[in-house]
Amino acid sequence: MDISEVRFASRFDQVTGSAIREIFKVIAQPGMISFAGGNPSLEALPDQQVSELAQYVLAHDGKAILQYGATEGYPPFVESLKSYVADQLGVSVPAVLPVTGSTQAMDLLCKALLDPGDTVLVENPSFLGNLQCLKLYQANLVTVESDEDGLIPDDLELKIKKHHPKLLYTIPTFQNPTGKTLPDSRRRAVADLANRYGMVVAEDDPYRDLRYEGEKVRAIKSYDQNGWVMFLGSFSKTISPGLRIGYIAGDAGIIRKCTIGKQSTDVHSANLNQAVVDQYLRRNLLPDHIRSICKGYGAKMHQMLQYLEQFPDGVSFTRPQGGLFIWAELPVHIDTVKLLSKAVERKVAYVPGTYFCADGGHLNTLRLNFSNSTPQQIETGMSILNDLIKSEI
Amino acid sequence: MDISEVRFASRFDQVTGSAIREIFKVIAQPGMISFAGGNPSLEALPDQQVSELAQYVLAHDGKAILQYGATEGYPPFVESLKSYVADQLGVSVPAVLPVTGSTQAMDLLCKALLDPGDTVLVENPSFLGNLQCLKLYQANLVTVESDEDGLIPDDLELKIKKHHPKLLYTIPTFQNPTGKTLPDSRRRAVADLANRYGMVVAEDDPYRDLRYEGEKVRAIKSYDQNGWVMFLGSFSKTISPGLRIGYIAGDAGIIRKCTIGKQSTDVHSANLNQAVVDQYLRRNLLPDHIRSICKGYGAKMHQMLQYLEQFPDGVSFTRPQGGLFIWAELPVHIDTVKLLSKAVERKVAYVPGTYFCADGGHLNTLRLNFSNSTPQQIETGMSILNDLIKSEI
Repeated sequence: MDISEVRFASRFDQVTGSAIREIFKVIAQPGMISFAGGNPSLEALPDQQVSELAQYVLAHDGKAILQYGATEGYPPFVESLKSYVADQLGVSVPAVLPVTGSTQAMDLLCKALLDPGDTVLVENPSFLGNLQCLKLYQANLVTVESDEDGLIPDDLELKIKKHHPKLLYTIPTFQNPTGKTLPDSRRRAVADLANRYGMVVAEDDPYRDLRYEGEKVRAIKSYDQNGWVMFLGSFSKTISPGLRIGYIAGDAGIIRKCTIGKQSTDVHSANLNQAVVDQYLRRNLLPDHIRSICKGYGAKMHQMLQYLEQFPDGVSFTRPQGGLFIWAELPVHIDTVKLLSKAVERKVAYVPGTYFCADGGHLNTLRLNFSNSTPQQIETGMSILNDLIKSEI
Repeated sequence: MDISEVRFASRFDQVTGSAIREIFKVIAQPGMISFAGGNPSLEALPDQQVSELAQYVLAHDGKAILQYGATEGYPPFVESLKSYVADQLGVSVPAVLPVTGSTQAMDLLCKALLDPGDTVLVENPSFLGNLQCLKLYQANLVTVESDEDGLIPDDLELKIKKHHPKLLYTIPTFQNPTGKTLPDSRRRAVADLANRYGMVVAEDDPYRDLRYEGEKVRAIKSYDQNGWVMFLGSFSKTISPGLRIGYIAGDAGIIRKCTIGKQSTDVHSANLNQAVVDQYLRRNLLPDHIRSICKGYGAKMHQMLQYLEQFPDGVSFTRPQGGLFIWAELPVHIDTVKLLSKAVERKVAYVPGTYFCADGGHLNTLRLNFSNSTPQQIETGMSILNDLIKSEI
């Protein structure tokens, strides 16, 4: 029998994901100015420092680092991570689990909770990697309404009452793709609704430390009375995505199920990578490093916003206080998927907003990333986009 | 609502896994002689070499290594891995995917293929980590009969006709837990049956390079005409388990589905770890390293076998030509789960065989690992086991 007759699992029936992958192939073309990715800027990546830390940890605990480790994490890192998370949240958490990038945190949480057909509430738009994750778990995705401040608690309650969801997936700070930050009062409301109705919240907060202005906002988790909020964090945006170290923090029972799920997913996250991040935390290298990153990213964000202000009437856009993304809406008759071909011809790329929308639509929207371009590239790329949009109006 | 009311996914209904975890807690006690794990010996772990290679790759390609990478793998490693796999198999393969330990290879293959209730054929006994993986995918596990040479092709065909399985999971070389190696003629038969009936084979072969005597056997994959055999490999037993680098090789369509599955599992395996293994392959460091490991492991295996020969009548055991494990059968009235408590009191640990059996039973069997003990520990531990078994007879 020919292998082309192999039957794949039905979880792939609604997952194609090819459109976005095509864009990333396009980005790889030489000379392309890419506002499409969500990558840290190359100069922000501490290669020298990681090399020194890797040498140090291999010299001091090399045999244990190269041996099998516990699924629960490399013990020194579990310890430093716990106090780091308590600092981040302003409250201590019952349990933490180091994972292979915060993408794995979402995957394990879905594995722990979701049966096919279970309803999951999502923001609209939302991070497409995790939308794909939810689709692979055959979740029933229901979108919650947002305004300029993010999720609307009244609509959230309405959707909870109507759909009895198992999970809410939210990125409350400098959201991907919109850059919006949920205000404090709404964070409390989300936690209260989760606790009242018995719904798990996946609070995905990888951009929290990338704040360029304004005041820090408390985590939803900090308002959690009964343990329904799980906090998903990452060192991908602050140290390095290539190391693949993130974490999930919260209720010990849920973490336990995630840990059992992880045993047969990758046994444990690589010890070397956990040990390097552990040194970052123990040596308190993160605050200075983040300050230096934020300085560069903040300048780029303001530069991009300045160019957006020169765009034609009918173009609106978000004004984030941090993170990696700005979200723009063009006049409704402009289709950003079609516009992308023209942009790519002129060597500029972005991601059409429709790909972030669980229900599709929103064809006149786009996501712009500023962190991974030089000021010169932002100037050139934004002028080209401005020209293209003007010619469509 | 209290978080204790959270409803977990039904995939956990048949997964507890606590027994084996309890054993591993016991092993961690000071002074314990452990024949229970499957760990490489600490002296076999090349901490100095990994440190040098990590320095080298971070100095030469540090920014790319710390940046997001492609799900398809770190490009230099994909290249060197392809030719390494072709060497291993004696045939080239259409596609390879670097993964986070070969445990992830199994997880992604299940993700690509299995719907709940799909039948998967397994050896009895088999590797319990991957049995747990299959249970989490809610597979219907059906065992295939084995004799002293491993899987019996006639029974395999019978079970294929009766159950129409999607997948066969097999460890043909120095099997975990039995140490058995499937002979060449049966390997051809397994490949032929898979191709005739349209069943995917997961050929899990992490111990292949740990051969201490006898001739190399061709991979099942090398007899695969139409692409139904997927080859799962690992560098955990030859370089380091803590680095978490393995791979899956075979049909491009199946690898593609695994890659899409991996996008939302951990995006990609850590570049640093892929780059270190890449250097191992490019600098051709593996053959010497494996020779030196095999010398030590082979001596330990023979030492353990010599002690087993002194065990009372009614004790039988396998005589592997490589790998990490020996499987022993005691007289039927001896329950190795109960015996373990007595062994642990005297500071010796092993894994009762029943935990490797998808259908349970086989209470008089046990798995012994020799790689992670010193000759002195093997002497002491095996004498204690001998005493304990004698007192049960």
